[in-house]
Amino acid sequence: MPETNNANRNNRPGGAKWRAAIYDIIFEADTPAGKYFDILLIISILLSVLVVMLDSINSIREVYGEILYYLEWFFTIIFTIEYFLRLICVRDRIRYATSPLGIVDLVAIVPTYLSLFLPGSQFLLVIRVLRVLRIFRVLKLVHYVSEAEMLSKALRASRQKITVFLFTVITLVIILGSLMYLIEGEENGFTSIPTSIFWAIVTLTTVGFGDIVPQTPLGRILASVIMILGYSIIAVPTGIVTSEISFASIEERKKAGPERTCAQCGNSDHDSDALFCKHCGTKV
Amino acid sequence: MPETNNANRNNRPGGAKWRAAIYDIIFEADTPAGKYFDILLIISILLSVLVVMLDSINSIREVYGEILYYLEWFFTIIFTIEYFLRLICVRDRIRYATSPLGIVDLVAIVPTYLSLFLPGSQFLLVIRVLRVLRIFRVLKLVHYVSEAEMLSKALRASRQKITVFLFTVITLVIILGSLMYLIEGEENGFTSIPTSIFWAIVTLTTVGFGDIVPQTPLGRILASVIMILGYSIIAVPTGIVTSEISFASIEERKKAGPERTCAQCGNSDHDSDALFCKHCGTKV
Amino acid sequence: MPETNNANRNNRPGGAKWRAAIYDIIFEADTPAGKYFDILLIISILLSVLVVMLDSINSIREVYGEILYYLEWFFTIIFTIEYFLRLICVRDRIRYATSPLGIVDLVAIVPTYLSLFLPGSQFLLVIRVLRVLRIFRVLKLVHYVSEAEMLSKALRASRQKITVFLFTVITLVIILGSLMYLIEGEENGFTSIPTSIFWAIVTLTTVGFGDIVPQTPLGRILASVIMILGYSIIAVPTGIVTSEISFASIEERKKAGPERTCAQCGNSDHDSDALFCKHCGTKV
Amino acid sequence: MPETNNANRNNRPGGAKWRAAIYDIIFEADTPAGKYFDILLIISILLSVLVVMLDSINSIREVYGEILYYLEWFFTIIFTIEYFLRLICVRDRIRYATSPLGIVDLVAIVPTYLSLFLPGSQFLLVIRVLRVLRIFRVLKLVHYVSEAEMLSKALRASRQKITVFLFTVITLVIILGSLMYLIEGEENGFTSIPTSIFWAIVTLTTVGFGDIVPQTPLGRILASVIMILGYSIIAVPTGIVTSEISFASIEERKKAGPERTCAQCGNSDHDSDALFCKHCGTKV
Repeated sequence: MPETNNANRNNRPGGAKWRAAIYDIIFEADTPAGKYFDILLIISILLSVLVVMLDSINSIREVYGEILYYLEWFFTIIFTIEYFLRLICVRDRIRYATSPLGIVDLVAIVPTYLSLFLPGSQFLLVIRVLRVLRIFRVLKLVHYVSEAEMLSKALRASRQKITVFLFTVITLVIILGSLMYLIEGEENGFTSIPTSIFWAIVTLTTVGFGDIVPQTPLGRILASVIMILGYSIIAVPTGIVTSEISFASIEERKKAGPERTCAQCGNSDHDSDALFCKHCGTKV
Repeated sequence: MPETNNANRNNRPGGAKWRAAIYDIIFEADTPAGKYFDILLIISILLSVLVVMLDSINSIREVYGEILYYLEWFFTIIFTIEYFLRLICVRDRIRYATSPLGIVDLVAIVPTYLSLFLPGSQFLLVIRVLRVLRIFRVLKLVHYVSEAEMLSKALRASRQKITVFLFTVITLVIILGSLMYLIEGEENGFTSIPTSIFWAIVTLTTVGFGDIVPQTPLGRILASVIMILGYSIIAVPTGIVTSEISFASIEERKKAGPERTCAQCGNSDHDSDALFCKHCGTKV
Repeated sequence: MPETNNANRNNRPGGAKWRAAIYDIIFEADTPAGKYFDILLIISILLSVLVVMLDSINSIREVYGEILYYLEWFFTIIFTIEYFLRLICVRDRIRYATSPLGIVDLVAIVPTYLSLFLPGSQFLLVIRVLRVLRIFRVLKLVHYVSEAEMLSKALRASRQKITVFLFTVITLVIILGSLMYLIEGEENGFTSIPTSIFWAIVTLTTVGFGDIVPQTPLGRILASVIMILGYSIIAVPTGIVTSEISFASIEERKKAGPERTCAQCGNSDHDSDALFCKHCGTKV
Repeated sequence: MPETNNANRNNRPGGAKWRAAIYDIIFEADTPAGKYFDILLIISILLSVLVVMLDSINSIREVYGEILYYLEWFFTIIFTIEYFLRLICVRDRIRYATSPLGIVDLVAIVPTYLSLFLPGSQFLLVIRVLRVLRIFRVLKLVHYVSEAEMLSKALRASRQKITVFLFTVITLVIILGSLMYLIEGEENGFTSIPTSIFWAIVTLTTVGFGDIVPQTPLGRILASVIMILGYSIIAVPTGIVTSEISFASIEERKKAGPERTCAQCGNSDHDSDALFCKHCGTKV
């Protein structure tokens, strides 16, 4: 997010005055106009997602279907205008259009137009909910952004361990699911290997829908093993992530305290208990 | 809780002697009379909650309905008298009436009177169970209170990370739920987007009621992704809270004994029972 | 367990030689005879538990009921003789009879005799499975015992935090369950407040049987809150226990390394990086 | 895996040139030919597992049964040839045939031949999925292998604690399951002690299929205890594994950079990018 902010600053158009004014309203969250615009935008997004949800409920569509249809188009046109305004007033259009935020902005309006040719696709509009993530920028929740970054950093750091874990889980459910198919068979609901693998995932993750339940003694013993396995190995991703979050927290705390910049070399990355600059040895 | 205790001490009325006497019985837990009063109060609260619960069971209400009705009024009148006594004998009435404990004391009697006009509202009386939290004060469970404070401090410290996590989860279930609605459709139980989102929450949190189960191959693949996702991302709040609790524990332990630094070698890593520095043998 | 071992050693009878011989066989696990006895005992216990389990399956009882009945009595008589031999050959009978192991030994034979007057009570015999815990002593799994002690120490240390957590959970499910009763009502399966509280426990703990599922929009919103709450607060006990286990592990590792005893004061509780005795300051 | 790699290197045949050439293609992943072979192999394995899965779905078998049958034999013959080529070109055949990879290679072809005599056993072919684990070698995911080793090291280190935990869980479900059988009885679905124990496992691990749900008040109270117990004690394996993973991570990080001690003040807590001691300013 902060990078996007920087990108925005660099993207501010130098040319026509009206473009700069629109830019300030649409892209900046610091000015009063920009703040009001963003709050209005978030309310519109939430309302439009609500419209899509209500439209999917049969009993409501039968009564208010027409109103919801017009509201859907109303919000889509609003968001289309907003999208083109954004395109017009940024300096580097390709950069905005290919940024994650720009793609979400586009994807949030396409399904309505698509629904003219492909009925049903309007429900994809719920993707608009992703636009609400702008809320973090509006409310200047710098803290939240930095916490989100710390979390995603911890998750990225544990990416490889998580991949190894997921590989193991997938191999496990394929083999255990197939075994359950052989043991229980079609008469007990394990109608095919894919179905049995789905059941093994449902059981290993401790979700347990209960639409299929093993009936034979051997099947129940294997199911017990799967359940206790699932109950125990959840410890592994938890352990991985906890360990990474702890390390990230410790480093954050080390750096906490008033920021001190070394007069000699300009380094400002000091531990809170540092008396000398670790890069040039000068007292700080 | 300790603040409330302090508040109580300051709230002790200086005026009439009988008010001070009542205050000592109702508010203090240190005097024998106060202790007996508190124990009696907790038993009454538990009994009155039991009465409300039993009253909600049809087979019991049919037989003992009248007795339960009178018992409900009996406890309500007792608690009403208690509430007014509390109001009378504290010095700062507004302060008590607007404190969390005071509000709970009031809310615990209102539903019975309300049920005269609004049948059914008497079941709100279970809110009385909150009053049982006084038990921590009665039993002088200072340890428990300090542990509760440490826990809530750890949770407060991780508030922002938890918010970011909940935001992500809510965005996820809205998008995944809508996708399931498009994939599975009404014929497989996913009758509307809100229903599908509810199903996505049920599945992601690994609750798995099993009233709706995906039937199409694509739906099952997406469901598997949701389940494995839910199974894995539970690691995130756990990691956050564990990390905070560990830090809180470390700080508590540090405070437990004053930190002692060896005058000879500067080592400060001493066991709490150490008499001599383990690195240089100097007395500490 | 080690204390029991010590207790055994002190309990060794000094008198008659045959009593000492029986004691060595029954109570000691170090001698060959004692080891064979213990292995035989564990096999008997497992077989007798299996008999009780099989006896509870209708289709098996119909065919093999008589055999199982005799086997049950056979094992009970064996264990009764063993119990009296234990009573005879220990020095302090009251101490053995009131020790946890002694009580389990008695409870493991009583239900069969009780079933003569109270049919059905023979199924309580599964309590015999507790006797299998002797296996830790037989196999000399000192490591396992020390690990078990470390775990139970960590759990004891987090006892107060866990109590606070459980209190909060119980208060939560009572209030949330009652709210669900008011919102959903009897027509949707929430037939009484106790039933609704049971449902709230099922949902909060992410078990999710699915026999009762909320149907109203408001009920589903509250259910979503309960599920996400349950999904998140599981982090609290996990954080507590993880933190305690980490501390216990750190302390264990600190003490690891060859045991060094101070020549001056006899203290042998040194950290692995200690150069001087922390009690008397002598070099170690 | 690395050991296997070493084993391979030592196993490279010195004799005939064509054997060495085949060895390089089949066993090595470093040469271009070896890499293409491995990628082709993994695709074949995944396709053959897919064939087995599709063959288990009735509606697909009815239409494409014959094609799937021939594909199954096609892949089996391919893998059989590959297995014999492997046997021919390694130096130490017994060593390869008894290594985990060698056993999986054999087990991956046997079921098809077995299905000639024992219909249904061809579904055991899903074991082929284990061969996909070779993917780690192909993609040279050294990082993943080292992460996998770290994880399995952490799990091995917590083996004894996990055993104690599983012993406790098994004892718990046997006793709690039997109690539920006595309380609820056959009329509420708890038809035998083994069934009740299976239900106790389903409930304790928070899977909750919901095919059997307690109906009596006492049964529901005990079920609540089981659920809250299961919800809480999941903290134990999590705590154990988290603690071990943290220690393994700390050690890994320590090894990452050589520990540098400041010659001046003895401080050894330097950041990896430090050039000067942060406490006294001396060069390190």
